[in-house]
Amino acid sequence: VRLETIPPSLISRFAEIVGEANAVTRADEQAGYLREWRDRYTGRTPVVLRPNSTEQVSRILTLAHEHGVGIVPQAGNTGLVGGQIPSMDGDQIVLSVERMTRVRDVDAVDGTILAEAGVTLAGVQDIAESIGRLFPLSMASEGSARVGGFLATNAGGTGVLAYGNARQQCLGLEVVLADGRVWNDLKRLKKDNSGYDLRDLMIGSEGTLGIITAAVLKTVTKPVDFATAIAAVPSIDAALALFHAAETAAGDTLTGFEFWTGDLQQIATAHMAGVRAPLDHSGPWFVLIEVSEQRKDGSARALLRDILDEAFSDGVVTDAAEAQSLAQRKDFWALRESFSEAQKHAGGSIKHDVSVPVAKVSSFLKAASEAVQRVCPGARPMPFGHLGDGNVHYNITQPPGMDKATFLALWEAMPRAVHDVVAQFDGSISAEHGIGQMKRDELVRYRCDVSMDIMRSIKRALDPKGILNPGKVL
Amino acid sequence: VRLETIPPSLISRFAEIVGEANAVTRADEQAGYLREWRDRYTGRTPVVLRPNSTEQVSRILTLAHEHGVGIVPQAGNTGLVGGQIPSMDGDQIVLSVERMTRVRDVDAVDGTILAEAGVTLAGVQDIAESIGRLFPLSMASEGSARVGGFLATNAGGTGVLAYGNARQQCLGLEVVLADGRVWNDLKRLKKDNSGYDLRDLMIGSEGTLGIITAAVLKTVTKPVDFATAIAAVPSIDAALALFHAAETAAGDTLTGFEFWTGDLQQIATAHMAGVRAPLDHSGPWFVLIEVSEQRKDGSARALLRDILDEAFSDGVVTDAAEAQSLAQRKDFWALRESFSEAQKHAGGSIKHDVSVPVAKVSSFLKAASEAVQRVCPGARPMPFGHLGDGNVHYNITQPPGMDKATFLALWEAMPRAVHDVVAQFDGSISAEHGIGQMKRDELVRYRCDVSMDIMRSIKRALDPKGILNPGKVL
Repeated sequence: VRLETIPPSLISRFAEIVGEANAVTRADEQAGYLREWRDRYTGRTPVVLRPNSTEQVSRILTLAHEHGVGIVPQAGNTGLVGGQIPSMDGDQIVLSVERMTRVRDVDAVDGTILAEAGVTLAGVQDIAESIGRLFPLSMASEGSARVGGFLATNAGGTGVLAYGNARQQCLGLEVVLADGRVWNDLKRLKKDNSGYDLRDLMIGSEGTLGIITAAVLKTVTKPVDFATAIAAVPSIDAALALFHAAETAAGDTLTGFEFWTGDLQQIATAHMAGVRAPLDHSGPWFVLIEVSEQRKDGSARALLRDILDEAFSDGVVTDAAEAQSLAQRKDFWALRESFSEAQKHAGGSIKHDVSVPVAKVSSFLKAASEAVQRVCPGARPMPFGHLGDGNVHYNITQPPGMDKATFLALWEAMPRAVHDVVAQFDGSISAEHGIGQMKRDELVRYRCDVSMDIMRSIKRALDPKGILNPGKVL
Repeated sequence: VRLETIPPSLISRFAEIVGEANAVTRADEQAGYLREWRDRYTGRTPVVLRPNSTEQVSRILTLAHEHGVGIVPQAGNTGLVGGQIPSMDGDQIVLSVERMTRVRDVDAVDGTILAEAGVTLAGVQDIAESIGRLFPLSMASEGSARVGGFLATNAGGTGVLAYGNARQQCLGLEVVLADGRVWNDLKRLKKDNSGYDLRDLMIGSEGTLGIITAAVLKTVTKPVDFATAIAAVPSIDAALALFHAAETAAGDTLTGFEFWTGDLQQIATAHMAGVRAPLDHSGPWFVLIEVSEQRKDGSARALLRDILDEAFSDGVVTDAAEAQSLAQRKDFWALRESFSEAQKHAGGSIKHDVSVPVAKVSSFLKAASEAVQRVCPGARPMPFGHLGDGNVHYNITQPPGMDKATFLALWEAMPRAVHDVVAQFDGSISAEHGIGQMKRDELVRYRCDVSMDIMRSIKRALDPKGILNPGKVL
């Protein structure tokens, strides 16, 4: 169905479901839904629908199914791979869940939150806080990201090391299927082996198998004491040695282990307002390490000291600064969260969100750096990310002085070179951002044919007309 | 295809794949594969095939697919719902993975183990131990249960509270599909958002979507100090209050929270060799609570003391015994693990493996007990299980003096009554044992039609001829 073939009468029928005020057709009002925040993806649509209930979503999909109209679900529009943006053909309708913001239930005893798809991640964190618990998913976009989006993409972030991805924070789902039927599976069970794991299949399927309208989220016991340090390390091998020592010593109380380069720190502190670094930029590598405890008896700090003391004597750490207050802890994390945006100030950058087995991060970085130089001599890799998860945001800044557009024109050759190295290390071309439109061709290249066949047969089984987020993932 | 319709020539072709010595056709040699250890399920088969490689499994399925022959995968034959036993029709071939016992790789740095489907759970635990790590899946059958089985059924056990089910211990899979193709997804990644979560779909599908031939298992940091106590509590509400206090105080270091009744304890200590209880049987309820720490500085014991002291002053605990040695800790756990078998000594028992939201366990037990009395006055509920997971092994012992067979004849009416109560509390009719053949009809009754439709369409998509473990789950 092309734009010109969706008759106005059909668009009117979609609009009637949500009411005229929530069927957005004016270009200026549509703009915010049709572009991704980094401007890498833009699309067209005849109408943005903003349902306020599961029933409305169900009616929209029933109608779309009947007429074979593609529906692109969108939540906070913070995705980084274009999954939430329609195609330029204008033949897909955007369904925004932003008005579905009801918190249907909070169970303070079991610590569960039943929230609709439009509730923000920060909103969920606040509710958890209000019952003395922690919702451990955390990322730079948490003020805008919404339940439907962070579950559809199985979002990651800085809390994954200790608490897992979005998938691990969800007990039950309500999903509208391609034909408009509502699959109500809003369970609050810690254990359930009654049939296939449909929940985890829906989570991370990026709206291609169903539209998540609500979820039961679980919370965890809130740590009450934190010990946080930034340490300079002489090499990634040293950083990995520190990680393994910290993990052995702290176990599950090791709640953060991030890394970045001195270059990146220099750019961030030079250009980003309010961003400070506790150590000079000569690193050459830095790690942020955090231990969280349930009790305020100083044991978190004592444990971190022990870890760092041993690391100093092993030569694994050359300098370290401990956060002396919660405000300073916040500064440490703000430094870490600033890198993605900071890179803009060093010119064009080509970004990769990859993972490899933790033990292979060092060899991967070396091989990737060589591959980068072959594609573009002088380009500057500025990797950072979640070292404890083997998740590297392998971002590459243009050579100084190069024309930005010339560099960005490499945004096919460069990912190909980097992803080839990832494949060589049995890694993933998308550790946490998903596939969306950006990595759809890459997925075919790097996943085996059998994987692709299984995914396609599941897609056909659940969405035979292909109306759910067409052109994404598969 | 009925037994009489599998021509001997076809059976010979299957036998050729594994070699005659590993194609078991003699009744006496087949016996161990055709009955479940509690004797609730028995079946017939023309041949038990014992392949020793993924390639042989692939060839078996290719041939089975071509001729539409049902294949029943079996690992340690410890399942409790008949999932591993063929039908009585004798038209299904049993495929035992017991000879696939290679450990293909152990990565001591990342703590991963690549094991084939026939390696036992105890074997995996030993390998983890040998690299100074812990494989946290633990259950009474661990000496016999095997990788392929505990993953196909997403097994649970006593470690779930802190570490999750089998699903959470697996990073990657190798699976032979219905048509014999090998899906190699032996990833070692902590994070991977490249496409649908096929791994978690396969795990827990009980061999109906594919046959797991190998897996990458992850390990966790090994706790080095344990504080373990058995406490008498006046009610389940008190037990829940204790659980929540312990969880808040200990967070992830709370690694065990089990419960049982005084009756059960009495039966176990009276009849089971070597089983001892540290407190008399007047409970009326008991909990086992365990805190595990990464350091041997006495903090585990101090924390447990704090929790129990507060519980005493709140009246939530009436008596408690702390394990004074690792040997005594072992005794405490042996007591807990003895209940399933101990119940045999009190006559016939009808068993349920259910879960409800943790906060609802108390109301569930009350309502279930009333339902039991309506079905069989005088029947004695002897619930025990993983309180911290909301997972109750709701076992019911016959009234004293009743004929055992008469009581066991209620093994339809009783589960129906209990599961109706489970449904009322939004629970699951199978918390950890799976569906198999035992709960296949129950699944249809208690899962919504939409859930069943999704599962059936996935089954059709991946196994269109229905040859994988026919008659199980769906």
